[in-house]
Amino acid sequence: MSFLSTPSFFPASCKKYVTGSRLDLLVPFREITLSPTVDQQGRVTPNLSLLVYDTSGPYTDAALHEKLDVTKGLPPLRSAWIIERNDTESYGYCKNPPPTEINTKPLPVQSFEKRQPLRARLGQRVTQLHYARKGIITPEMEFAAIREGMDPDTVRKEIASGRAILPANINHPEVEPMLIGKHFLVKINANIGNSAVLSSIEDEVEKMVWAIRWGADTIMDLSTGKNIHMTREWILRNAPVPVGTVPLYQALEKAGGKPENLSWELYRETLIEQAEQGVDYFTVHAGLLLRYIPLTMGRLTGIVSRGGSIMASWCLTYHQENFLYTHFREICEIASSYDISLSLGDGLRPGSIADANDAAQMAELETLGELTKIAWEYDVQVMIEGPGHVPMHKIKENVDIQQKICQEAPFYTLGPLTTDIAPGYDHITSAIGAAMIGWFGTAMLCYVTPKEHLGLPNKHDVKEGVIAYKIAAHAADLAKGHPLAQSWDDAMSKARFEFRWHDQFHLSLDPERARDYHDEALPAEPAKTAHFCSMCGPKFCSMKISHELKEMVGKNITEKNMPILDDPTIKTGLSQKAEEFKRSGSKIYP
Amino acid sequence: MSFLSTPSFFPASCKKYVTGSRLDLLVPFREITLSPTVDQQGRVTPNLSLLVYDTSGPYTDAALHEKLDVTKGLPPLRSAWIIERNDTESYGYCKNPPPTEINTKPLPVQSFEKRQPLRARLGQRVTQLHYARKGIITPEMEFAAIREGMDPDTVRKEIASGRAILPANINHPEVEPMLIGKHFLVKINANIGNSAVLSSIEDEVEKMVWAIRWGADTIMDLSTGKNIHMTREWILRNAPVPVGTVPLYQALEKAGGKPENLSWELYRETLIEQAEQGVDYFTVHAGLLLRYIPLTMGRLTGIVSRGGSIMASWCLTYHQENFLYTHFREICEIASSYDISLSLGDGLRPGSIADANDAAQMAELETLGELTKIAWEYDVQVMIEGPGHVPMHKIKENVDIQQKICQEAPFYTLGPLTTDIAPGYDHITSAIGAAMIGWFGTAMLCYVTPKEHLGLPNKHDVKEGVIAYKIAAHAADLAKGHPLAQSWDDAMSKARFEFRWHDQFHLSLDPERARDYHDEALPAEPAKTAHFCSMCGPKFCSMKISHELKEMVGKNITEKNMPILDDPTIKTGLSQKAEEFKRSGSKIYP
Repeated sequence: MSFLSTPSFFPASCKKYVTGSRLDLLVPFREITLSPTVDQQGRVTPNLSLLVYDTSGPYTDAALHEKLDVTKGLPPLRSAWIIERNDTESYGYCKNPPPTEINTKPLPVQSFEKRQPLRARLGQRVTQLHYARKGIITPEMEFAAIREGMDPDTVRKEIASGRAILPANINHPEVEPMLIGKHFLVKINANIGNSAVLSSIEDEVEKMVWAIRWGADTIMDLSTGKNIHMTREWILRNAPVPVGTVPLYQALEKAGGKPENLSWELYRETLIEQAEQGVDYFTVHAGLLLRYIPLTMGRLTGIVSRGGSIMASWCLTYHQENFLYTHFREICEIASSYDISLSLGDGLRPGSIADANDAAQMAELETLGELTKIAWEYDVQVMIEGPGHVPMHKIKENVDIQQKICQEAPFYTLGPLTTDIAPGYDHITSAIGAAMIGWFGTAMLCYVTPKEHLGLPNKHDVKEGVIAYKIAAHAADLAKGHPLAQSWDDAMSKARFEFRWHDQFHLSLDPERARDYHDEALPAEPAKTAHFCSMCGPKFCSMKISHELKEMVGKNITEKNMPILDDPTIKTGLSQKAEEFKRSGSKIYP
Repeated sequence: MSFLSTPSFFPASCKKYVTGSRLDLLVPFREITLSPTVDQQGRVTPNLSLLVYDTSGPYTDAALHEKLDVTKGLPPLRSAWIIERNDTESYGYCKNPPPTEINTKPLPVQSFEKRQPLRARLGQRVTQLHYARKGIITPEMEFAAIREGMDPDTVRKEIASGRAILPANINHPEVEPMLIGKHFLVKINANIGNSAVLSSIEDEVEKMVWAIRWGADTIMDLSTGKNIHMTREWILRNAPVPVGTVPLYQALEKAGGKPENLSWELYRETLIEQAEQGVDYFTVHAGLLLRYIPLTMGRLTGIVSRGGSIMASWCLTYHQENFLYTHFREICEIASSYDISLSLGDGLRPGSIADANDAAQMAELETLGELTKIAWEYDVQVMIEGPGHVPMHKIKENVDIQQKICQEAPFYTLGPLTTDIAPGYDHITSAIGAAMIGWFGTAMLCYVTPKEHLGLPNKHDVKEGVIAYKIAAHAADLAKGHPLAQSWDDAMSKARFEFRWHDQFHLSLDPERARDYHDEALPAEPAKTAHFCSMCGPKFCSMKISHELKEMVGKNITEKNMPILDDPTIKTGLSQKAEEFKRSGSKIYP
């Protein structure tokens, strides 16, 4: 049984696996087949197909697709690798069985409930950081290295230094390993999750598959309404990408929605419940200290992080220090037992242009730097969350300070939005900031959808958000000089100059939309090879004219042979060249 | 008779005119009325209305709107100012009467045909640069100064120095004067115009009114198909913003579409025809020299400027220097007789990430610097066009080099696109580059619509393009520290923090979309004052919690009185404060 809409495959694309050093190490790419170049003389030159980074998982594998069943979940890709390391143990069924959560449409859950979670054996640490520091290149590292076109030992070194993380909970064997670090491709996260007001489990699983189809590298399940446990279980079992959560949200639900009922014990129980399910990274707002709260009182928009405002409320209710801070070492012990990466939340991030880079934000960031070092003591992988709302001239400062204070631990920012005056278009206001901050060294960009500040995103919004952020991340990769990035643009530009319209569609981040837009004016098939489009029409197409110039004149004039008009001997040559051009016969506008 | 769809007015907005030093100097703004702040105790504090820069013209003036008739054109706002200067003459009807252009639906043209164009009297120069250099603050300068919130003499100085232009042909008295210069608000241009494949005169006038409604500061009519003269006449008579053209396109139509039939005489005749109609700025591809063409032969995408490819074709056909370059002084003489600003076209701008900032582009830019000085000899206002397709790390270099070579003449760029892999989303790929290049000092950004590279934009695309560019320009204004920009964001942020949902919609660049998105989940009127939205739901709304914290705790804890947890005397105080907080009674989640 499957409620999932079939995701359509990308045109002219197929799944291509590159095998690593062992047979069970199959790294997925999307191979885009290109049509050949045909010149004006009819000569045909083939174009190499393009391999692109692929986040979409088995859903877009034509050979596997039919066999997938969302009620069973994805194949556990990493199971053998985890077992082989011989440092984990099974300890019976989940200690926190799913609470009786009522869904509008009951779903079969028996298969998921039978899972037996793993944890590190006593005294062991099972994190990729631990292995990396010991000099071990895990299959996960090799897998991720192949995806990035990088040497596996470089990947190991980046993880060992703390500059990159590979989020992969041992209880999420379905994950296709990936890297978050400034020396790799910039990644993007898509937030999904139901709220008390809207949406169901089915919607959220559907959104997850949809988001990764368009390129989301990780997913955060930010559910706050009913069925939090079940929603997460369904997402995890079907997610080939790392899944992050903010455990505080579920803890608050358990506390009846009252921050004053929160406690370390309730939070700890929630961490273990989610650890056993396989959450790959936790956002923990441990840097928000009681003494920082007054720094937000003069702000235009106060505290805008949900986790931040909840913890601030708790801190003030008891006038005690944030229990996430005081118990941070215990959090690290749990994280190291399951290999959960910590994403240190910026509970005091500014929520408006006016409040950007203020004292409260910077105070919290200092504490996040302190916590980073503690996490590393426990071999726990860690990244740092950042804002939010930042005008362009204050963006670089954010990365520079974070990288210094947190010793180059990966930065993970929300946008940032570069202006607040365009609700309904915040995927654009923030894609501007995201591209810039990615270029400056941010490792992962949390997407913003057109619904930000207005409502919960639907499937359409998720797609718009993911594509805006793929653009931002790719623009950053280009600016950083990542070789995989440039080759994609070059393939597109070459197709464009050669009027290979189909290839232009296929190489687009959204082939369907590119084709639809072209079809609006020129739907007929001959237009897909025409040497013009409706934008300029045939007579005014610069590419067309330019191409003909190149064909006809390129062979006569080279850089070494530039005409210099003032030289009289050249002048004669010019007249001859003009005659040659005319004699060559091919009309410029046939 | 009017075929124009009625543009709907913006909600909670009205046209507000600020009067200058003379009674006929009425500068339009949009006044957005805001609702009052109501605090938790029910106290009401009014919020000042916000005046924003308004490009939409008389179409959004409720008092004028009914009287407008597109077949008559807009009132000639500047006529008295032009006549008063006593330096122009009328010389009978247009020398170039509209050719018999056939439109699908014939339109009445009699009123437009009767216009008698003006030109400078013999020996006079009638440009704003001429007046500025003579120390004269024209009504046009004062008008534009009031729009920018600037001192009129600062405006005069910026124009006199060549750092800003005020494009306003003496035959386009309908224009509401505006400034293009790096010390003013960043402006945006929307390209419209029919092509041989699509669209009609009505469509183009409709698009113009639509584009300025959403914020386009100037319009370029890039028509290349039938009825070029008539389309332009209709646009000009109804345009309250400057209108630019590329005269070469019409000259090529006159030359039967064959570049080899182009000549200086044909081009000159076209310039005068358009000058008499009232075109405010001409794109002239005079910097593309014969010897630069070979520099493009190794490019991935050749020459991508339409004008550039046409002139390159002409140059190669005759192996002669570009006639726009050799006749540039005559072009300046014409421009100075009508006050047409020159926009020096970048015919060799790169058309792909791979070709960015290459030798061909830089060679042409050197020539544009030379031509800038020549234009200034004739008191002709001039700006410089720039690319195009530029990865982020090469954007700043473009502005810096242009500003140096062209002695700070305003830069006017197309985007730039920061990646080529997202056709269908090039309003976003380019808004990223546009925001950055605007911040770095570009004075005007030519928009790119989602249809770029695929087809001609329709009304929907025009809106998407304009809004993406308003975002880019506004983000640049914020980063540059323009005071008018920050106040808009602050008004939005305050409305957001105070849950004034209607005000958030009204302050948005697109009030309708903001409201529609909010309505999707919470359409009922009570939700428009609710202290949450569907994104997080009531329990998790950070703004709600944060606001309550501020109300309840702000008075107890100030920056001066920060709790320091390690101090034992403070610890007692903290317990007391905790008790106070609990006693204060108001539940955090009522």
